[in-house]
Amino acid sequence: MWVVVLLVTTNSCTARAQRSLPSGDTSDPLPSWREGVAKERILNFVQRVTSLGKDYVPPEERLATFDNDGTLWCEKPVVPQLVFIASRVDALVQHHLAWKKQLPFRTILEQGVGALVQLDRADVYHVVTSVESGMTQSEYRQEVRHFLASARQPRWERLFTQLVYQPLCELINYLVKKDFQVFIVTGGGREFVRTISQQLYHIPRERVVGSCLQTRFEIQGEEPRVVRLPQFVEPINIGEGKPVMIDRDIGRRPLLSCGNSDGDVEMLQFTESRDRPWLAMLIKHDDSQREYAYEQGAAKVQRLATTRGWTVVSMRNDFSRVFPFQRALP
Amino acid sequence: MWVVVLLVTTNSCTARAQRSLPSGDTSDPLPSWREGVAKERILNFVQRVTSLGKDYVPPEERLATFDNDGTLWCEKPVVPQLVFIASRVDALVQHHLAWKKQLPFRTILEQGVGALVQLDRADVYHVVTSVESGMTQSEYRQEVRHFLASARQPRWERLFTQLVYQPLCELINYLVKKDFQVFIVTGGGREFVRTISQQLYHIPRERVVGSCLQTRFEIQGEEPRVVRLPQFVEPINIGEGKPVMIDRDIGRRPLLSCGNSDGDVEMLQFTESRDRPWLAMLIKHDDSQREYAYEQGAAKVQRLATTRGWTVVSMRNDFSRVFPFQRALP
Repeated sequence: MWVVVLLVTTNSCTARAQRSLPSGDTSDPLPSWREGVAKERILNFVQRVTSLGKDYVPPEERLATFDNDGTLWCEKPVVPQLVFIASRVDALVQHHLAWKKQLPFRTILEQGVGALVQLDRADVYHVVTSVESGMTQSEYRQEVRHFLASARQPRWERLFTQLVYQPLCELINYLVKKDFQVFIVTGGGREFVRTISQQLYHIPRERVVGSCLQTRFEIQGEEPRVVRLPQFVEPINIGEGKPVMIDRDIGRRPLLSCGNSDGDVEMLQFTESRDRPWLAMLIKHDDSQREYAYEQGAAKVQRLATTRGWTVVSMRNDFSRVFPFQRALP
Repeated sequence: MWVVVLLVTTNSCTARAQRSLPSGDTSDPLPSWREGVAKERILNFVQRVTSLGKDYVPPEERLATFDNDGTLWCEKPVVPQLVFIASRVDALVQHHLAWKKQLPFRTILEQGVGALVQLDRADVYHVVTSVESGMTQSEYRQEVRHFLASARQPRWERLFTQLVYQPLCELINYLVKKDFQVFIVTGGGREFVRTISQQLYHIPRERVVGSCLQTRFEIQGEEPRVVRLPQFVEPINIGEGKPVMIDRDIGRRPLLSCGNSDGDVEMLQFTESRDRPWLAMLIKHDDSQREYAYEQGAAKVQRLATTRGWTVVSMRNDFSRVFPFQRALP
């Protein structure tokens, strides 16, 4: 078990950063970040809150929260979990023959994940609860692992798990070294992301907060198990659901947070404080060459970033590389 | 801030244990436990799962979960949070004059907390949601701190916060040193227990799972805040709610768990496994001299402890002292 985990983690970009970095505090903790305002603000902020002085924050209060899709890994052309869900519709239709005639399942069966992203939110949730329930948590994890072991992102023809943002992995690594508690706060599925958080980001599963289904405890034979039910836990972990869930599950306010879309606005607002330093960061997808350039779903957060003094991170300007497999550009 | 926290923690029994124990692995990590089956099982278990060998469990999987009321601190004659709730009814009636005529509030106003414990569960929940909502989380914490700063347990005439079980504090301390992740999983209020978990047990607030109210995020003036609403998050963290919430909030199964009542049965069952070692512990209240002797609400868990091989901890026989202020008896 141990050995397997260690082998797998060599895929993750954090491990790569660790290998390529000499030890010691004098080395650059963020080698894939270009010199600029964003990098400078991060380094200054961490320096301030970890040094004894008026801005010092004790380790237990150094909470950092990161969105996942589009913040830590690539969400284009489609969020990986939606590709998984479309594949589940395909796999489960043999047990649900009515889906062949029933919307929205019929459209997904005919047109694939492209149809799924066209649906309104209520329909997406209906599909999610239908195909991600009716199994134990451990069976679900197996399905996710199996899917991610072979599913590839079309543009780079690489596994989804290879499409993590190297600069963000370095930032997580740096914050952990500075005794931050780093949590993922994802609009996506809690258990989906927990399945990969350790491997991809060295973030343990108990530090993943996300949308989740209701569950039931039962003992089957002699074995206790948790079964996934076809209803969401409220609220969904998007928008104002994020601070609500951060408060419920962690019980602290973030000192640093990072997102990329309008669904992250309230988490970034929750980070602001009159009483202590804070850093709210917005990842801007403006690099059509090395990743994607898109603004849809981010109009509000970009406007607020300007008026609230949040730190905008331009993928094109602030990153010397985006993915671990890319060569760094000066 | 730092200084205040350090001063306060000197009240906790864990700190006391740390001061009185010489450092080094050869000293007894559980000095308030008498030699016997329970202590031997704990020490053997921890030794097995932390030593390289067939029973080794890596640190990240060493999850330990403890109930709070009656497991870590005294719940007799009345659970402290219920005393707090009765005091809230008294304090809030000036804003809710109808309560003077309205059941169950009228009875609580007339008879105090004694009436509250006589109510059925639905009525208790109605009172809880009425008096613990309508304020921000930080206002609520202030109320709890203010209450616990002066409220005393009648038999010992001591603060509730002094009535923690010294042997359990030592056990938590020992497990943390052995790289366990120790969580409180309480049927009581999550925010209530978070207010004191660091001070009493050196358990940080993000490691408290408990029953909780729904909340709303809002920005009041410039300040983001979380407001408590008069509805519970489902499920209540009792009975099968405990494994459901452990799975949801932590995402792992306990390797070790400890409870004292029928509300802990499912958490203890969730600890059992065919695939790895486990330790399920039941605190038995059988010491009328130094604490209390009672069995109500524990018939099922005591029966199961026998048939399932759970470790029963007798307060009378296994503890050389119960509370930090008591002298150890040989």
